[in-house]
Amino acid sequence: MEALEILLKHRTIRKYKSETVPDNLMEKLLKAGIRASTTGNMQVYSIIHTSDPQIKQKLAPAHFNQPMVLQAPHILTFCADFNRFKRWCCQRNAEPGYDNFLSFMTAAIDALLVAQNVAVAAESEGLGICYLGTTLYNADAIIEILKLPRGVVPITTLTLGWPAEQPEQVERLPLDAVVHDQVYRDYTPESIDRYYSEKEHLEANQKFVQENKKTSLAQVFTDIRYKKADNEYFTEKLLAVLKNQGYINTSL
Amino acid sequence: MEALEILLKHRTIRKYKSETVPDNLMEKLLKAGIRASTTGNMQVYSIIHTSDPQIKQKLAPAHFNQPMVLQAPHILTFCADFNRFKRWCCQRNAEPGYDNFLSFMTAAIDALLVAQNVAVAAESEGLGICYLGTTLYNADAIIEILKLPRGVVPITTLTLGWPAEQPEQVERLPLDAVVHDQVYRDYTPESIDRYYSEKEHLEANQKFVQENKKTSLAQVFTDIRYKKADNEYFTEKLLAVLKNQGYINTSL
Repeated sequence: MEALEILLKHRTIRKYKSETVPDNLMEKLLKAGIRASTTGNMQVYSIIHTSDPQIKQKLAPAHFNQPMVLQAPHILTFCADFNRFKRWCCQRNAEPGYDNFLSFMTAAIDALLVAQNVAVAAESEGLGICYLGTTLYNADAIIEILKLPRGVVPITTLTLGWPAEQPEQVERLPLDAVVHDQVYRDYTPESIDRYYSEKEHLEANQKFVQENKKTSLAQVFTDIRYKKADNEYFTEKLLAVLKNQGYINTSL
Repeated sequence: MEALEILLKHRTIRKYKSETVPDNLMEKLLKAGIRASTTGNMQVYSIIHTSDPQIKQKLAPAHFNQPMVLQAPHILTFCADFNRFKRWCCQRNAEPGYDNFLSFMTAAIDALLVAQNVAVAAESEGLGICYLGTTLYNADAIIEILKLPRGVVPITTLTLGWPAEQPEQVERLPLDAVVHDQVYRDYTPESIDRYYSEKEHLEANQKFVQENKKTSLAQVFTDIRYKKADNEYFTEKLLAVLKNQGYINTSL
């Protein structure tokens, strides 16, 4: 199918058939993945492909037991990875200088561009995917389960398989809410009202507010889904991971 | 063209024709972009579309005067952006808790998935793109030029236009160098030699080593292209940006 059509049709798939993806198809998806742009062609990422039910069982709690982790036949964990590159440098009489936060971001960007390529490739072959944002929350546990050495940090995860559902496409803000012409023009109370109006008036979102006994949709986000205390707790955990994995040094 | 074929054909384009992209085509690309997955459908990103030659002139030094910035008719700066979402929360009697590093990463991931969707969409329409990794190096300057308020951090940039060159596709490591089965299996001196052999033996890379008077390709990276001192300098600048833009608080 045309690439643009694939992108426009994207839906997150959370229910999968049990059939696995044939090895040659998986290879095709991953090969398309690694054609993504990468800083200086360093390819400072790794992809862990997990299908073993026992390892998936261990990963599930790290992803807050979201059912996709056990149900999807394939789990792809995309990691920032300077470990391989550093080993190469050391073997070639070159002194790597990548134990810093900029290098972490460089590697994280690499990993994410590959992940999105794999997502698009998968959808173009009729497969479904779901991103797991929990990857950064419990990076410490994932590091242990997937045996990630120093220099390797999991950034995001895709669950992958043949769709067993056909969900409606979810809404997005109007395009001009997120695109700025020439420079950023900051929002006004009026433009915020206008841009969020459609989202707030959707029946599903209004139901969401009622069910959670809140007075606004925004409160569902701040009080339930993405709470300050949780964000701060997982921030501390993530910063500890970056220190342990060698991307933040003591000067912070 | 088929999506998979588009992904496999990717080449970075650094020379562009002067013709601009029609508004309706640009809109199509951006609409495909914002269908990318986003954490909790919060869409915590913004895209700044810059085509004004005067603003591009200001942006050029922030991107180390890479010629694509002036030559490409369109510059798209993809930003992590909790500013809009926070304003919405505040207007809806909801208390945002997103002034932390986890939220920065959430927003950066959002921005990068959109960027890669736009890149794929552009290539599917015959356009060419180049990612500018310099975005994070000089985020402070870009923030000033593009008038990014607190809560907004530029993460990556695409130059975009009709290709005026047809470069060869660059090499990648063998797929099994970057994909791990079930869990990470760390590299050995032998596997590093094997995986990097093809890259090291490419004529273009060997020439690169000679021209730079180095004894290995790895040294070109560590001593010239991505030096420790530069990475540390730009790390400090980037961390200052994250503090200024409200994503790292004093507890660090």
